[in-house]
Amino acid sequence: MDMSERIIVTYQVAAAPAEIAARAEALAIEQSVECPLAAVTEQQIRDEIVGRVEAIAPIGETRFSVRVSLASATAPAEPGQLLNMLFGNSSIQPDVTLADVELPPAYPAAFGGPKLGISGLRAKLGAPRRALTGSALKPQGLAPEALAGLAHRLALGGVDLIKDDHGIADQAFSPFAARVPAVARAMREACAVRGAAMLYAPHVSGSLDDMRRQLDIVRREGLSVVMLMPMIVGLANFHLIAKEAEGLIVLAHPSLAGAQRIAPDLLLGKLFRLLGADATIFPHYGGRFAYTPETCRALADAARRDWHDLKPCLPVPAGGIAIDRIKELLAFYGTDVMLLIGGSLLAAGEQLTEHAARFTAEVASHGQ
Amino acid sequence: MDMSERIIVTYQVAAAPAEIAARAEALAIEQSVECPLAAVTEQQIRDEIVGRVEAIAPIGETRFSVRVSLASATAPAEPGQLLNMLFGNSSIQPDVTLADVELPPAYPAAFGGPKLGISGLRAKLGAPRRALTGSALKPQGLAPEALAGLAHRLALGGVDLIKDDHGIADQAFSPFAARVPAVARAMREACAVRGAAMLYAPHVSGSLDDMRRQLDIVRREGLSVVMLMPMIVGLANFHLIAKEAEGLIVLAHPSLAGAQRIAPDLLLGKLFRLLGADATIFPHYGGRFAYTPETCRALADAARRDWHDLKPCLPVPAGGIAIDRIKELLAFYGTDVMLLIGGSLLAAGEQLTEHAARFTAEVASHGQ
Repeated sequence: MDMSERIIVTYQVAAAPAEIAARAEALAIEQSVECPLAAVTEQQIRDEIVGRVEAIAPIGETRFSVRVSLASATAPAEPGQLLNMLFGNSSIQPDVTLADVELPPAYPAAFGGPKLGISGLRAKLGAPRRALTGSALKPQGLAPEALAGLAHRLALGGVDLIKDDHGIADQAFSPFAARVPAVARAMREACAVRGAAMLYAPHVSGSLDDMRRQLDIVRREGLSVVMLMPMIVGLANFHLIAKEAEGLIVLAHPSLAGAQRIAPDLLLGKLFRLLGADATIFPHYGGRFAYTPETCRALADAARRDWHDLKPCLPVPAGGIAIDRIKELLAFYGTDVMLLIGGSLLAAGEQLTEHAARFTAEVASHGQ
Repeated sequence: MDMSERIIVTYQVAAAPAEIAARAEALAIEQSVECPLAAVTEQQIRDEIVGRVEAIAPIGETRFSVRVSLASATAPAEPGQLLNMLFGNSSIQPDVTLADVELPPAYPAAFGGPKLGISGLRAKLGAPRRALTGSALKPQGLAPEALAGLAHRLALGGVDLIKDDHGIADQAFSPFAARVPAVARAMREACAVRGAAMLYAPHVSGSLDDMRRQLDIVRREGLSVVMLMPMIVGLANFHLIAKEAEGLIVLAHPSLAGAQRIAPDLLLGKLFRLLGADATIFPHYGGRFAYTPETCRALADAARRDWHDLKPCLPVPAGGIAIDRIKELLAFYGTDVMLLIGGSLLAAGEQLTEHAARFTAEVASHGQ
């Protein structure tokens, strides 16, 4: 990595106009040397390692956008350390939000981003253009065969991707080693019936050791997708599993990520993509979560737009979407999207396959 | 684990009085089955797995304390999954804060808590009663020999524990494999001069693989302490390293932890202790961070009070404390505490050892 270049970090800071210059300076120090300048005696460290306030711009009467540059030497290409330098200590200061990051090209080159991305997922599904559909297996508490039954009925309705609910991990009522083969078998049968490729994404979780054991089972079953929660498993472990999951689509789940005072488009869009997410799940506005249309737009843009040489990452809006909103969502996101409808489909009970078929048909017909 | 018992989670929820009952019910569903009740057809899952609202109590005009019970079967003793069930999705809902958790005894028994705790650290230092002292090596950018020089001079002043700054990881200017042996050597020399045990805590970071490689170096150097950032490395990996670091004191750093809408006493006190932190660093009020005295008091209580059979965890207030506040801090925390003074000591330049000696002498003399 070329360590001479600087990372440009944008924070939003609440401060009185008379205090913002000093506050910005303190922030630049907190996220670099983290000590009084009097304790920094080496000229080279003062010149190169200490964070630098590059710009301050008002965005409200007592709110400012502050651009700070950090030496890339302080944050080598290790995902946890990058986040540590971007927001580790200042996350404890309630007047600061992490808004955006511009990285020197050495980072995307080192981290690699999605290995398959939107086009890789489309290739696996044989669906080059239309919007994609997804659903989730739940409630937790069900045994493997019951979850496999749900997967089978959703797949018969043509749902492209069926994932474990993120609450389903490795519990006694549905151990990973029993659930994944059972659901995989049910999916193979449904694919044979429909003559189409539909994919199952098991939720891989726990320590890095746990995740590697689970990944072995995923490979043994010949599956094509895994889902992980980057903020719970740790960014470095997420990145490592994404690298080791050669040939698999990596789906990122936002669990705990909403808790950060980090802009959702930056964290769930840009950073998860940087670290290898082929697709990123997030709550669409108007569901059970409080994201705004602007947040959803910015997040989808961050996931898909040209950025260094990284493949685009598929936006997967979710979180309480019902079937009657499909047209609205496709108008909002276009077709490079996967609509994830879980609970409201599952509530159809005996009509599950029929509702799933209506969902997939409506998505397929859009814009044709 | 006995899975019949329930976890009691306390949330704080902002809602109008007319809406709180429905909001609490939705929260209990979000953190358990995460789907409409219509999709939960099995009676056993409705009875046992669906989260239950146990109590709602007003704590303000539009703010309520909501107690929800969750089935422990949904969160086996895997730290990431426990956090996922406590706050995964609801972390994305801005009206909810995670305030407290009461766990069935099977969790403390499975997780184990601190292996050495306060008494183990005191035994290593030969300091059975007095308050303890700590400092940090910084700024980052210094080479191993320069950091070793700082450690040597701080240790000559009698500082009990000297840790890497949390910004110091495995950078080119000070690689872990070069820094740790250099600082360890400097510490051994200073210990020999003073005839006292003083400890160095290297910052262990990165993926689980990275941390294990670093732990090998720590063991090879015969060191007694490691520092980790649980919220960045992932709770499951933190817990695993704490278990594998047999005989070592585990020091938890709050990086990124302040970003959570999780009560600091719960996260940095109770949960980090549960997962094996022998000592927990947090910002003391009146420094560069916005914690209140009440937050600091609650955090220190959560770390130290009787809780199941877990060893107490040492509170380590830090974050911009200067030497002139020692009396105040010791009056506030008592003697089962380590005062961590970094930057304001390091600013002493040529007088570093003298300032460190004044710091340690003042702490040692307190209450004698």
